[in-house]
Amino acid sequence: MEFRMESDSIGLRQVPKDAYYGVQSLRAMENFKITGLKLNEEFIKSLAEIKKASAITNSAIGLLDEKIEKAITAACDEIIEGKLHEEFIVDPVQGGAGTSSNMNANEVIANRAIEILGEEKGNYKIVHPNDHVNMGQSTNDVIPTAGKITILRLLEKAMSKLEILHKALDEKSEEFDDVIKMGRTQMQDAVPIRLGQEFKAYSSVIKRNIARLNKVEKHLKVINMGGTAIGTGINADEEYLSKIVPTLNEVTNLGLMQAEDLIDSTQNLDIFVEVSSGIKNCAVSLSKMANDLRLMSSGPRTGFGEINLPSKQNGSSIMPGKVNPVIPEVMNQVAFNIIGNDVTITMAAEAGQLELNAFEPIIFYNLFQSIETLTNGVDTFVENCITGITANRERCRELVENSVGIITAICPHVGYKKAAKIAKTALKTGESVRKIIIREGILRESELNDILDPIGMTEPGISCKNLIAK
Amino acid sequence: MEFRMESDSIGLRQVPKDAYYGVQSLRAMENFKITGLKLNEEFIKSLAEIKKASAITNSAIGLLDEKIEKAITAACDEIIEGKLHEEFIVDPVQGGAGTSSNMNANEVIANRAIEILGEEKGNYKIVHPNDHVNMGQSTNDVIPTAGKITILRLLEKAMSKLEILHKALDEKSEEFDDVIKMGRTQMQDAVPIRLGQEFKAYSSVIKRNIARLNKVEKHLKVINMGGTAIGTGINADEEYLSKIVPTLNEVTNLGLMQAEDLIDSTQNLDIFVEVSSGIKNCAVSLSKMANDLRLMSSGPRTGFGEINLPSKQNGSSIMPGKVNPVIPEVMNQVAFNIIGNDVTITMAAEAGQLELNAFEPIIFYNLFQSIETLTNGVDTFVENCITGITANRERCRELVENSVGIITAICPHVGYKKAAKIAKTALKTGESVRKIIIREGILRESELNDILDPIGMTEPGISCKNLIAK
Amino acid sequence: MEFRMESDSIGLRQVPKDAYYGVQSLRAMENFKITGLKLNEEFIKSLAEIKKASAITNSAIGLLDEKIEKAITAACDEIIEGKLHEEFIVDPVQGGAGTSSNMNANEVIANRAIEILGEEKGNYKIVHPNDHVNMGQSTNDVIPTAGKITILRLLEKAMSKLEILHKALDEKSEEFDDVIKMGRTQMQDAVPIRLGQEFKAYSSVIKRNIARLNKVEKHLKVINMGGTAIGTGINADEEYLSKIVPTLNEVTNLGLMQAEDLIDSTQNLDIFVEVSSGIKNCAVSLSKMANDLRLMSSGPRTGFGEINLPSKQNGSSIMPGKVNPVIPEVMNQVAFNIIGNDVTITMAAEAGQLELNAFEPIIFYNLFQSIETLTNGVDTFVENCITGITANRERCRELVENSVGIITAICPHVGYKKAAKIAKTALKTGESVRKIIIREGILRESELNDILDPIGMTEPGISCKNLIAK
Amino acid sequence: MEFRMESDSIGLRQVPKDAYYGVQSLRAMENFKITGLKLNEEFIKSLAEIKKASAITNSAIGLLDEKIEKAITAACDEIIEGKLHEEFIVDPVQGGAGTSSNMNANEVIANRAIEILGEEKGNYKIVHPNDHVNMGQSTNDVIPTAGKITILRLLEKAMSKLEILHKALDEKSEEFDDVIKMGRTQMQDAVPIRLGQEFKAYSSVIKRNIARLNKVEKHLKVINMGGTAIGTGINADEEYLSKIVPTLNEVTNLGLMQAEDLIDSTQNLDIFVEVSSGIKNCAVSLSKMANDLRLMSSGPRTGFGEINLPSKQNGSSIMPGKVNPVIPEVMNQVAFNIIGNDVTITMAAEAGQLELNAFEPIIFYNLFQSIETLTNGVDTFVENCITGITANRERCRELVENSVGIITAICPHVGYKKAAKIAKTALKTGESVRKIIIREGILRESELNDILDPIGMTEPGISCKNLIAK
Repeated sequence: MEFRMESDSIGLRQVPKDAYYGVQSLRAMENFKITGLKLNEEFIKSLAEIKKASAITNSAIGLLDEKIEKAITAACDEIIEGKLHEEFIVDPVQGGAGTSSNMNANEVIANRAIEILGEEKGNYKIVHPNDHVNMGQSTNDVIPTAGKITILRLLEKAMSKLEILHKALDEKSEEFDDVIKMGRTQMQDAVPIRLGQEFKAYSSVIKRNIARLNKVEKHLKVINMGGTAIGTGINADEEYLSKIVPTLNEVTNLGLMQAEDLIDSTQNLDIFVEVSSGIKNCAVSLSKMANDLRLMSSGPRTGFGEINLPSKQNGSSIMPGKVNPVIPEVMNQVAFNIIGNDVTITMAAEAGQLELNAFEPIIFYNLFQSIETLTNGVDTFVENCITGITANRERCRELVENSVGIITAICPHVGYKKAAKIAKTALKTGESVRKIIIREGILRESELNDILDPIGMTEPGISCKNLIAK
Repeated sequence: MEFRMESDSIGLRQVPKDAYYGVQSLRAMENFKITGLKLNEEFIKSLAEIKKASAITNSAIGLLDEKIEKAITAACDEIIEGKLHEEFIVDPVQGGAGTSSNMNANEVIANRAIEILGEEKGNYKIVHPNDHVNMGQSTNDVIPTAGKITILRLLEKAMSKLEILHKALDEKSEEFDDVIKMGRTQMQDAVPIRLGQEFKAYSSVIKRNIARLNKVEKHLKVINMGGTAIGTGINADEEYLSKIVPTLNEVTNLGLMQAEDLIDSTQNLDIFVEVSSGIKNCAVSLSKMANDLRLMSSGPRTGFGEINLPSKQNGSSIMPGKVNPVIPEVMNQVAFNIIGNDVTITMAAEAGQLELNAFEPIIFYNLFQSIETLTNGVDTFVENCITGITANRERCRELVENSVGIITAICPHVGYKKAAKIAKTALKTGESVRKIIIREGILRESELNDILDPIGMTEPGISCKNLIAK
Repeated sequence: MEFRMESDSIGLRQVPKDAYYGVQSLRAMENFKITGLKLNEEFIKSLAEIKKASAITNSAIGLLDEKIEKAITAACDEIIEGKLHEEFIVDPVQGGAGTSSNMNANEVIANRAIEILGEEKGNYKIVHPNDHVNMGQSTNDVIPTAGKITILRLLEKAMSKLEILHKALDEKSEEFDDVIKMGRTQMQDAVPIRLGQEFKAYSSVIKRNIARLNKVEKHLKVINMGGTAIGTGINADEEYLSKIVPTLNEVTNLGLMQAEDLIDSTQNLDIFVEVSSGIKNCAVSLSKMANDLRLMSSGPRTGFGEINLPSKQNGSSIMPGKVNPVIPEVMNQVAFNIIGNDVTITMAAEAGQLELNAFEPIIFYNLFQSIETLTNGVDTFVENCITGITANRERCRELVENSVGIITAICPHVGYKKAAKIAKTALKTGESVRKIIIREGILRESELNDILDPIGMTEPGISCKNLIAK
Repeated sequence: MEFRMESDSIGLRQVPKDAYYGVQSLRAMENFKITGLKLNEEFIKSLAEIKKASAITNSAIGLLDEKIEKAITAACDEIIEGKLHEEFIVDPVQGGAGTSSNMNANEVIANRAIEILGEEKGNYKIVHPNDHVNMGQSTNDVIPTAGKITILRLLEKAMSKLEILHKALDEKSEEFDDVIKMGRTQMQDAVPIRLGQEFKAYSSVIKRNIARLNKVEKHLKVINMGGTAIGTGINADEEYLSKIVPTLNEVTNLGLMQAEDLIDSTQNLDIFVEVSSGIKNCAVSLSKMANDLRLMSSGPRTGFGEINLPSKQNGSSIMPGKVNPVIPEVMNQVAFNIIGNDVTITMAAEAGQLELNAFEPIIFYNLFQSIETLTNGVDTFVENCITGITANRERCRELVENSVGIITAICPHVGYKKAAKIAKTALKTGESVRKIIIREGILRESELNDILDPIGMTEPGISCKNLIAK
């Protein structure tokens, strides 16, 4: 391989001649061989968008030569289009608050810009990674901003999948609206409910989670560009400070706003804890739903057997014919992972010191993963599970009729104590509640029919008063 | 001791004759000897408020005899005033989704009402815990609602303490506005900042946390009263359903709203995860602040020594004269505890099954503790630490002048590479940056004075452009 | 109230005349109003044991006057017997690495010793909290050691309850050894198992958890007494250093050992993370078991209905006759809480700085709670649940016979593909697997009887080979 | 692309003609597009080792044709050598307890074996993924066993890096044995210590962590091969049961043991919680050490400045000459991530139900990552940080001499109260403690020299007694 020589504070060092990255990226790559993974593609693009907006701004206020600006923005555009991503060689888990990621971007953009200007890579007199590409910026405003832009983009995808899930649940809710089944509390037979009501509840909680994420999204749009090193804006020209965010909005179309207190915004990462909390809460709702689906589809012969999940793959390498609830199971696992990620994010946010939190890389690594796996998990959850669920109507109805739980509906008419006694007898003898009540002359059959009307039992207001009045 | 006999599904059982609680409370107490602690006082009051509102509603719609209603509401009022709390004998950590707490309330209120009506405790024909006190309700709507009312009350206190903290930080921010000190990133000397700016950043993050909790508060006001057992409203009269929440608002003055989807609202506890997330995020901000104060006050002789925390107690049993940052330390510990509680709350929320989440007791135990310890922690943090902080102005200034970090301000004028070289020389020789620049004729003294103006370095827009233009 | 005057580094201050605690306890109580709770009783006793051992040691090596020693040890003995605990007024959650707890002990013991010597409380010339009671010690060796002694005592109780659970599960395992039931994986019918085997598996995992805690116990016995302030042993006489641990063993009978590296032992709290991990792992096993019991007892009519848990209390305030799995549910909640506590303990352990970890108070608060609630939870789990479980033998057998899962046993004889086809047919038509196989002439009835022998299917080695050989 | 047709329970489906994987892998890949990552290489190899051992065993006991066995083992050997890994196409995060990973291995091995036998891929009559490759096995014994083998291999690497760290710390401890510096507790000046003692303490805690992991390693060697579907050993021949583990030991050389209770061992994943706890505890120790290094190297001018970390890369994109503690920072982040992973692992372990825990995939994903990132983190921590640390001896000594903390050593000679007064005076006036004592005639200079001997103050037994006796 051919090399060029580059230098930094540490000293001289060979860099592959064809590389767009430079000495600082290289050292960072060697210092941080942690996960073996690459930076998130959206994050790389966000970095390029920021560099582009800065170059445009610096040029507009007369600090950056227009020729250099054009070369830088051209280089950035290539990265935004998905090119040169393989030149981002640093591990997402890195020390130094993201300086390595920022310098990797600065170096790639500088070298590509130099090339565009017809010079050889490494000739930083033409376009310098720090003086030109990083002009008016610091890792400490660039990296959190790039993180926010990335999250906004990832959240958008997540929410669109959640919307699809929400609709699918609503449709199932209508499809199953007349499926009477037994409701259960604490795993014990409670009172009747309609399967459609259950799916409506799932739909409702997803809707609330989407609304919650929507609110978080707004807070995410507050960025600290212009704060530079510690939020005081050192080395940022006043004009730059007022123009960088509007320009970035032209580039990203995201409606970003500059933080009122840039010092606070540089050192406090509560917004990322907030995003993670929202994602986690959504994961909790999804995991609960997945658990329910696994319960209700348990069987086929020795479980609840109320619903069927679509068969997506052989369930077992040893047990023929077994089909397992693999899609809800992966939803559960995604949720467990997100919950653990939230702890990591929380700890990292707590560990900030003075003017900076140096632990953004691990926050981003976990938060990007949380959002992306939620998105992917929900995608398979809808496509390969929810939409294909069918109900075992017959079995659901039988279980209700066979149940003792309907005694609850009798309660307002005979009192808790007598009702409890009937229930106990039914459980002991195996007789139906209805039979016992009629035999013992507690209520007349017509009254009972009113009270135990299946649909009626799944709605409020079975007119206790009127019945009592009768 | 004298006893009366009571019975439940399990059978007959002696209850102390004078006890207001009954057989179900007693069994629950024996079943759940877990923490040895009592129910939260606010939670007991919330239960009484709900029982009162239900009695009023049931009477208004003709389901409950007015005489019984009056006795029940009188009993509830006593509990709301703080009486009879010792009759709540169940452990806050209990199986059964809070049925034990609900029945403890039902029994105490029934017996006190019976007494008020001139009969002997235990004579449930007069006032029955289930048929009268619990009329139209279920543990599954009462307990989550009581939890929400309690949290609203506890949050109010927490937020008022946070407001005090916010103001105190703002005042300190003004007091310290002219204290120039060194900013640090990653524990390394960065660029100058004013101590007042640092306290303003603390104030800003607390303000944002308050705003976040304010939003959560609104979501907390959505309750599931009327949903009864599983949210379908079984046994709840339609009129009751429409009147219970307005009546409860008359009792509590909290502006509560009935959930649109009562089934969802009964089984999904995402709101408690949301509250816990908000409290946790606030704890993270406070812990970071506490860490900073411990760092900046480190010393007195061998640390940063930039600020002094008020002495609140002897620091050591062996080292005389040692005064430790005990107040920030307790703030840290409160935060760690809240972060752990959040994990418990998350797990419990995830563990709900079908129509109910039976794990509300542990959620409430942890969430009440999180909010109350946050409140208490912030209280001592303001009173015994923040307001008494003083600055070591001289030392702060010396550290800035002695620092190499100010080279950053030179950077736009000489380029990153040359600036780095000057910094390296300064660090090696011990010379000041200013001296080297002048000696080497890099900038004129007047320029340097402009650039290195201490206040100027803590603000954006030191007019790089103009300087360059000069 | 009458007062006496005391002073410390902060200044003069009134102390109630009758109080055994002194000025430092008082200030600490005021500084840390966090939980409103008291120090753990065992922890108070452990402190007294350490103070006693130190006094004996200091006297033996000629540093402490024998008269003072006798008075101190007498005071300590009273505390060990359970007296004077109300004089420990500091909150368990406190800043300062436990200095407040240590000083509370020093002051109470000093004042009681002064009294024993016939003088008035507060006359510290007679017996001084620091110079005499704390002689040769520091908070930084006393507090971690007291924590370890406390945990050893609490663990002993926990393990004895776990032993009882282990035995109860073993007994159930024998009782249910002939109850054939369906095994389930991923909530789907798998292959037959005996209920006794399931309980044996519960017993096995508990046994392993006990063994794990036993190992942790050994590590807990390594203490840092003699290390004083930072582990260098400053102010500890060499003779004291070598005698304090043997003397403490005479007092406590616990077989404690002095750490080889006292500096390490003072600053690193990994042992508490280790204990918490062990307790957490046990909680995970218990929670899984509780979940299984709730699943298997689900019903009574619409669930698995394989076992019955003993009825311990009315299950519902609205649903008569409902009996819920409240004991397993509280076991779950205890587990969730322990898992959250583990996170708190981990964070606090991580937050140690340089020569000390100042966050022991929150570690102890959580760890003591984890162990004690585990103990209490297991106690009610055994007494009120496990020992009373009964099996629904008939239903269990029916479910097996009705199941398709037994096809697995056919698999080695006909191949996976054909077996899967039979399973599919059975599921579609509702026919039994046995019937299809015979009708289609796939195996002879006698072979089938061998293969599908219920007990045989729950053991390895149904001699595939021999059958094939046939 | 050319295709072949394959079928499973779901139906027919095209598979790329050249693919070694089959229809089940393909469906799994489509069902679980979660992380976009691949199975861990070690895990793939472990699967092949198990398949090889099973084939050998099945052949030895006469159940598997020798020709097929040879083909299977040859295919396995290729995978063990690192070939065919690209044919493992399933996502590590998958529903179904690892059935997809197991079937991916079964299919790849079957097809390669078929090829070896001269037939075309997909002709499963020759070698069948289930009947031959998976013979006597189930996902439910194969996957946990493969996980354990993988972890054993990964742990070995982790421990060897920890050993290197341990030695490096020991060496530093010797190098710095004579560097007197100030010890600090709670960030406040305490008493003197030697830098070598501090590094010895780091070494000690690492040693203890290695010992802890060593014990865990033993527990990891207990596997459930032979248990098949649910631990009852259904379809496993008795001879197979007794021979599979010894054969696997011949293949792996790991000294594995068969679990006594295979049912327990199939459903309880406490061992993985135990491994994660051990790794987490180690991470906590490392993070604390990293924090200390960042504190002690804070500066260069305005911090503690006691040590220098080697410069590894430019510290800042905006602040020239800044060198940051990036290596300790990445160590912190690795630790935070491991702590979060532990929560995920704990939750997944808790979520097991009845005869199986279906959530092994997420446990493995997190646990493998925890161990590997710990290994990589420690590697860079030693190589790029620890070994290059240098001490600022002069500054360390100055800080001690300037400190008030040395008053502690005076305490046994003058009493706590008087010592505290001296300290207060020193702090107020800025005078040295030594000067005040001599001026006020409290001790003679020679006595003071003995007491304040720097080395002496870092060791126990400065003979208080003898001094007193003097």
